[in-house]
Amino acid sequence: MTDGTIDDDPAALVTAGSRVLAAAGQDDMVWGHLAVRDPGGRGVWMKSAGWGLEEITPDRVLLVSWTGELLAGSGRVHLEHHIHTGIMRARPDVQVSLHTHASTVNAFSALGEPLRALSHDAAVFAEHGLPRFTATDNLVRTPELGRALAADLGAARACLMPGHGLAAVGRDLAHAVMYGILLERACRTQLTARAAGELRHWTGHQECLEKDAVAWPDSQIDAGWQYWRRRAGLLRAR
Amino acid sequence: MTDGTIDDDPAALVTAGSRVLAAAGQDDMVWGHLAVRDPGGRGVWMKSAGWGLEEITPDRVLLVSWTGELLAGSGRVHLEHHIHTGIMRARPDVQVSLHTHASTVNAFSALGEPLRALSHDAAVFAEHGLPRFTATDNLVRTPELGRALAADLGAARACLMPGHGLAAVGRDLAHAVMYGILLERACRTQLTARAAGELRHWTGHQECLEKDAVAWPDSQIDAGWQYWRRRAGLLRAR
Amino acid sequence: MTDGTIDDDPAALVTAGSRVLAAAGQDDMVWGHLAVRDPGGRGVWMKSAGWGLEEITPDRVLLVSWTGELLAGSGRVHLEHHIHTGIMRARPDVQVSLHTHASTVNAFSALGEPLRALSHDAAVFAEHGLPRFTATDNLVRTPELGRALAADLGAARACLMPGHGLAAVGRDLAHAVMYGILLERACRTQLTARAAGELRHWTGHQECLEKDAVAWPDSQIDAGWQYWRRRAGLLRAR
Amino acid sequence: MTDGTIDDDPAALVTAGSRVLAAAGQDDMVWGHLAVRDPGGRGVWMKSAGWGLEEITPDRVLLVSWTGELLAGSGRVHLEHHIHTGIMRARPDVQVSLHTHASTVNAFSALGEPLRALSHDAAVFAEHGLPRFTATDNLVRTPELGRALAADLGAARACLMPGHGLAAVGRDLAHAVMYGILLERACRTQLTARAAGELRHWTGHQECLEKDAVAWPDSQIDAGWQYWRRRAGLLRAR
Repeated sequence: MTDGTIDDDPAALVTAGSRVLAAAGQDDMVWGHLAVRDPGGRGVWMKSAGWGLEEITPDRVLLVSWTGELLAGSGRVHLEHHIHTGIMRARPDVQVSLHTHASTVNAFSALGEPLRALSHDAAVFAEHGLPRFTATDNLVRTPELGRALAADLGAARACLMPGHGLAAVGRDLAHAVMYGILLERACRTQLTARAAGELRHWTGHQECLEKDAVAWPDSQIDAGWQYWRRRAGLLRAR
Repeated sequence: MTDGTIDDDPAALVTAGSRVLAAAGQDDMVWGHLAVRDPGGRGVWMKSAGWGLEEITPDRVLLVSWTGELLAGSGRVHLEHHIHTGIMRARPDVQVSLHTHASTVNAFSALGEPLRALSHDAAVFAEHGLPRFTATDNLVRTPELGRALAADLGAARACLMPGHGLAAVGRDLAHAVMYGILLERACRTQLTARAAGELRHWTGHQECLEKDAVAWPDSQIDAGWQYWRRRAGLLRAR
Repeated sequence: MTDGTIDDDPAALVTAGSRVLAAAGQDDMVWGHLAVRDPGGRGVWMKSAGWGLEEITPDRVLLVSWTGELLAGSGRVHLEHHIHTGIMRARPDVQVSLHTHASTVNAFSALGEPLRALSHDAAVFAEHGLPRFTATDNLVRTPELGRALAADLGAARACLMPGHGLAAVGRDLAHAVMYGILLERACRTQLTARAAGELRHWTGHQECLEKDAVAWPDSQIDAGWQYWRRRAGLLRAR
Repeated sequence: MTDGTIDDDPAALVTAGSRVLAAAGQDDMVWGHLAVRDPGGRGVWMKSAGWGLEEITPDRVLLVSWTGELLAGSGRVHLEHHIHTGIMRARPDVQVSLHTHASTVNAFSALGEPLRALSHDAAVFAEHGLPRFTATDNLVRTPELGRALAADLGAARACLMPGHGLAAVGRDLAHAVMYGILLERACRTQLTARAAGELRHWTGHQECLEKDAVAWPDSQIDAGWQYWRRRAGLLRAR
């Protein structure tokens, strides 16, 4: 897993991803987190508890074992590390997972409606759907709940966590973060449209699959990610 | 009542709380105020009239007696000091009370709907409910109205003041301010969801009680508060 | 008409009022304007065409005669000077009038609903109502349309101009600007509430009259105005 | 095609237009673009792929031939250059065309409602209507789709691209950009109003035509454009 302009240091990756999520408006005080699979297989790198996403620096990133022990770094481990260890155990393709409390996504989840593609954004969720995590509205605070979340997520790129937030995953940092951002935007657009009335036009399933291939190849996912990194001022800050 | 990184000076506490409420978007020109119980039992410390929440400095904080006299500091006493003296007389557990004019809360109050937990935020109001103050839509400008507000508030952490704003209370600054912030966010999320349609999913009462215990222990209330203090730039400004 | 911290120079008053309206979010590119009655009775002082409200400086303020001639200053006279000359001819009590294109007010006007008091803001419009200007949706570009606007305004503090914007008036700068700001906020709050459902609570007419007396005496109108002036950075900029 | 304060350098025009669109909130990561017809007839000047609208500088502007070849400048050509070459081939009057992903416009398009004039903004679309592009929700990635878009656009100043975004055109930079901005604002105002209820008032077709003549002559289009250029800080940045 390489990421072009930043190196493969997991702490740098967690820092970049966290700051971009905050820049995209998915911050919620000190909650929400992003994890990167340890290249050495020891567990996941994720932010330390107690800091906002925009406050993350490499020295606030921890290596957490598959059973939640702190292996490297100093700080408190988020109780919900089970989200990431649960997903990464079940999904060998996933290198990066994230969880935020985006309020628009919570409003959307409360409606129980299917996500409709009203712009390019939702097209990325056509192929594998947008599952709902149903085991709890409470914190994902046990290995069992982590497994249940992974089971509900299945092969999807993201899932709703009603009453709580969202989870998104990717084979690298760019894909995971972009899926998280696109989900929040897609929900926001649908909320805006539905507030004004009934939907009479959306892009159908087949055209979404075609659009996913044309509008969202890896090169475009990466172009969006690089844009967000510039916007978050990460390159300048280093 | 100690607050970690700031000392126990009531004027410093009022300053910090006021600025955080403004940073959280609950400012309304020069209206709304936060009060801290005087450690010596003489009354409440609250901001001087005529200044916005974000403009408060320790020298704009007054000690107001239980009957509204200015005991220390220079400036005009808010007519609505009865909100705070009324509540603190009735609730010995309350060390900090606040009142804002958050427009989202006023919009929510106009609907007459129950608050539904669509995210973590509303869970803190499950145990004691979210009462409505009904004695007046006008200013809380007499001791009687202060008592009526305290009576409607009862044992709750916050209450709606329809046509006017909200009140929130806590055993320390962190709890009062966080309850005020969480209430505004919960109302905002519900307004967003309801604009788009009927609610089909929310966290039920029993799970909210469990979530309040798991997601909102004192340590998390404090983590949120410390985050807002950093965000409001208070530490830097001192 | 004195305004405390700024002197009686009409160009300074127009500058302050224009910049506060922009700070309150009522800017619309280079449209909208505020006028001050000439102390010498020659006409009105208003901003020059071609500049945004936040770009106004005293040298971009003109003295316009009762028939639209440029009497002092350099720049182009807004075609809609008829709004101000029409109102001020009909209302000797009005020293300051303003017109903006606030988009929330236009959205509200499209609904044809009565304004309901969901917060303190709308209470100032209880006594004299909130008329609708009906002669045209187009520009107020003739003396006749100026008279028609004044006739629809009657004794009110503000009126809706459906498909176009709003007008507000006052006996000094503080009252006119605050009425303009309070109207926009009241419409915004009602739009937010109505998007989410039916209104079940609002402050009734009699209590609004009482609230107007208690919450909006001249001293409070002035306190709000002084706050906006500080917020707009006007004092610093001079 | 001259533009007053900036010269006729097509790269400077593309830069100015792109930055104003971003300042007006129509940015979408690195997507959306504006094109200027080459004065020499060789094709269109448009921004290079991979940059946000606010990141455009003259050295990130390319000359693209009528068949999509890169003729001048360095960078990648946007796949959707067909939007601009298609429109400009069909519309000799068009010197500038633009395409953005404004999310409010996508929400509006999903409703299938006619645009109603609730403010001055929508009046510019009365004469020629606001067509919908129906050939695809996917990218405009072939000459055929470019022709289909031009056919749906017809003689109009802008069109909706449901599930995708908008296109707007003009005989110079001021007209094209202002039409794009006015369309987004008109859709936003209608969404706000419709969220709150049924429309009971809008400006009728005939009065819109009159208003277009009175409120939107070339001089006013230019005044709005010059305002946006100042606001985008373009003059200062050069």
